[in-house]
Amino acid sequence: MPSRDLDRILQARRDDDLAGLVRFLEIPSVSTDPAHEDDIRAGADFLVEELRDLGFAADAHPTARHPVVVARRDVDPSLPTVLVYGHYDVQPPDPLELWNSPPFEPTIVDGAVVARGACDDKGQVYAHVRGAGALLERDGELPVNLIFLVEGEEEIGSPNLGAFVAEHADDLACDVVVISDGAMAGPGVPTITYGLKGLAYLEVRVRSAGRDLHSGSYGGGVPNAVGALVDMLATLKGDDGRIRVPGFYDAVRDIDEHERETMARAPFDAEAFKASIGVRATPGEAGYSLIERLWARPTLDVNGIGGGFQGEGSKTVIPGEAMAKVSCRLVPDQDPVDITAKVGAHLRAVAPEGVEVEVIDLHGGHPAITPLDAPETRLAAAALERAHGREVTFVRTGGTIPVVSDFQRRLGVGVVLVGMGLESDRIHAPNEKFDLKNFYDGIRTSAALLESFAGLGRG
Amino acid sequence: MPSRDLDRILQARRDDDLAGLVRFLEIPSVSTDPAHEDDIRAGADFLVEELRDLGFAADAHPTARHPVVVARRDVDPSLPTVLVYGHYDVQPPDPLELWNSPPFEPTIVDGAVVARGACDDKGQVYAHVRGAGALLERDGELPVNLIFLVEGEEEIGSPNLGAFVAEHADDLACDVVVISDGAMAGPGVPTITYGLKGLAYLEVRVRSAGRDLHSGSYGGGVPNAVGALVDMLATLKGDDGRIRVPGFYDAVRDIDEHERETMARAPFDAEAFKASIGVRATPGEAGYSLIERLWARPTLDVNGIGGGFQGEGSKTVIPGEAMAKVSCRLVPDQDPVDITAKVGAHLRAVAPEGVEVEVIDLHGGHPAITPLDAPETRLAAAALERAHGREVTFVRTGGTIPVVSDFQRRLGVGVVLVGMGLESDRIHAPNEKFDLKNFYDGIRTSAALLESFAGLGRG
Repeated sequence: MPSRDLDRILQARRDDDLAGLVRFLEIPSVSTDPAHEDDIRAGADFLVEELRDLGFAADAHPTARHPVVVARRDVDPSLPTVLVYGHYDVQPPDPLELWNSPPFEPTIVDGAVVARGACDDKGQVYAHVRGAGALLERDGELPVNLIFLVEGEEEIGSPNLGAFVAEHADDLACDVVVISDGAMAGPGVPTITYGLKGLAYLEVRVRSAGRDLHSGSYGGGVPNAVGALVDMLATLKGDDGRIRVPGFYDAVRDIDEHERETMARAPFDAEAFKASIGVRATPGEAGYSLIERLWARPTLDVNGIGGGFQGEGSKTVIPGEAMAKVSCRLVPDQDPVDITAKVGAHLRAVAPEGVEVEVIDLHGGHPAITPLDAPETRLAAAALERAHGREVTFVRTGGTIPVVSDFQRRLGVGVVLVGMGLESDRIHAPNEKFDLKNFYDGIRTSAALLESFAGLGRG
Repeated sequence: MPSRDLDRILQARRDDDLAGLVRFLEIPSVSTDPAHEDDIRAGADFLVEELRDLGFAADAHPTARHPVVVARRDVDPSLPTVLVYGHYDVQPPDPLELWNSPPFEPTIVDGAVVARGACDDKGQVYAHVRGAGALLERDGELPVNLIFLVEGEEEIGSPNLGAFVAEHADDLACDVVVISDGAMAGPGVPTITYGLKGLAYLEVRVRSAGRDLHSGSYGGGVPNAVGALVDMLATLKGDDGRIRVPGFYDAVRDIDEHERETMARAPFDAEAFKASIGVRATPGEAGYSLIERLWARPTLDVNGIGGGFQGEGSKTVIPGEAMAKVSCRLVPDQDPVDITAKVGAHLRAVAPEGVEVEVIDLHGGHPAITPLDAPETRLAAAALERAHGREVTFVRTGGTIPVVSDFQRRLGVGVVLVGMGLESDRIHAPNEKFDLKNFYDGIRTSAALLESFAGLGRG
């Protein structure tokens, strides 16, 4: 348990915690919209000032687009160094008419602060800022060296972060990275996300004729781009849900017995899962449980398809062109470049005669996993249990956070994912919220993590 | 051969023929655009006046939308009655900027009149008006009873014609229907189109979830509407090009040996066909030649497909909905209602678990065929050979003209399709044209047809 002292301090700081969060949330730092460039800058400046006030050396570093905030407090070279990563940019608030209160006028509703960015990710970033502040108020110093790395481009795919981390690898050298940009397994359930899937996203374009052709004049005598694409895509998976692309599973790390047991114990209600999203079945790869498929098995989905006539009514064309977006979620040790190449080669190989196939690599990200028995995982779990007074739940997710593998590969350190929000926080949607309980729990958790990580490297 | 007299008369009438056609083409009778309602009316009135001047009892009959012109000259109840069907409405002229001269200012270029509707179908309708006029000038009377039925809604799918024909079946009773709304097999090649395909056009909608789902959070655990649709559509045809819908071929009339020989002799250049439309292969049903597939075998095509993310770049969604347009071209004796039901049932039967399938019947039309040895076919062929001094080519087409089966079924008569245009006449496209040679040949052909049909029912 955190000390009595810290509890009293945390309690006393609550009004200031919230006042600061509200100021942060009032800044409409929408990264995708050039009209908000000044607001993005204001979001970075807010953090720089807050962290300078705490005695950090803090600066907003320019990138090709939006600045990265780096703040560091170097306490003692003999202490471990913790890097907290997050982002201060937010999704656009559209559609505005569905908000019950203006998205950049934070409003307290049912014990939660409602605003764009409340949970994703300003609330969670700011909980770490306030957690460090609480320790500084109590002790005058932190138990570790601490670096904040907070970017302004996460919602647009972090186009400049990888290069920034690589370029500043020496300055960003650390012993562990902490990321809070996600959700707990449930209300009040301390949660560590120890595995993320990677991503291989490609577009396939098929061309069968110089133009759309009249189905009366040409039907029966010409290739059909949509028909060809449909036939090609249908070969990607078998009836058993297995992906049929040759070599697709070659690098997949099996789920071991220990992990399988952990997953079987995870709090997961399949019926509630189905009801929440309006699905009537949970199809997938044969031989694996639903949660194993969601968390730890690679998947393939057609994300979109288009070709020919899509309007109202009927138009008798044989489409000359068609396209589909196809993506795979990857697990260790699959490589996105390798998988994109294999899927592309398969699609070309099964294309019928007379159609041209073009495959475009759109996007990729490496999968990541932190071993359950890694020191940073054990220390983080201990901190969460102290902060919450409750056993930690370990989860994996099918989501991809490319920066995690960037940190692992470029900084050579472990990454601990400690989400403070809830799946029900409506991130990216109208009326995004962050429960104040979770905000204050997050501050306590952050302080506990820093105290716990002081033990890193000491056995 | 037409008599010397008629040839001289036809020659003398040429300036008037063209002057009348130009006046007809100057009327922008665009049926789809409510702004052109007065012009549609003017198009109908033009025909009524021309035909009254020839002594026809002519009127524009109102329908729910655009009027139908019916004009009749009842010569003698003992003579056969010929009904000429056509349409006075035209396609919109867009895109206007691609026209070399204004679409409703007929211009003579390289021996052709260039205007919207020049070939489709005003030029061909007017050739029949002038053909009757030439016979009247020579003989003072026609050799048959003649009805003109010219509608103003062909380019919007003839929504009111079927009911009009059914309602006026007694008045429209006739011995043969002549339609000139198409093309010859080549320049100067007298052509009879003796077979048309039917159409069964449906939309299939698939729903797998209440909304699009994040492929990271849900991949591996939920159905994918696009994936399901793709798998369903891929079952519609086999690798041999055969349509796998149970019962699809049940009612198909085989191509007999005589017809097979006729098709083998048809002037058709597969390489030119491929080059003209930019295709590299001519796939289709195994066991049939390209021309047999185009003309006389039923086909199935996906006309359009859409679902999920189709924009630029990548979006990691699992689509919750998808739709496709699917249509079949039918041959005798397939029935569009039956085929739509069979395709719909097949798609429902192969749908994976957990997806809802909705099938919407969008459009249908019956196939039609006129036997090569039917009296009206033989008499028409004799007329065309007289008019052109050259052997007739018999063709079928994959296109559908629903009114043909309406006439066959509601009036119980044979239909003869005598196209006067060329495939290169750019119908529905900018710079539509009608070669003056084909216009004048069409007038001579029309007169020859009326003379020839005088022999109908006489052995």
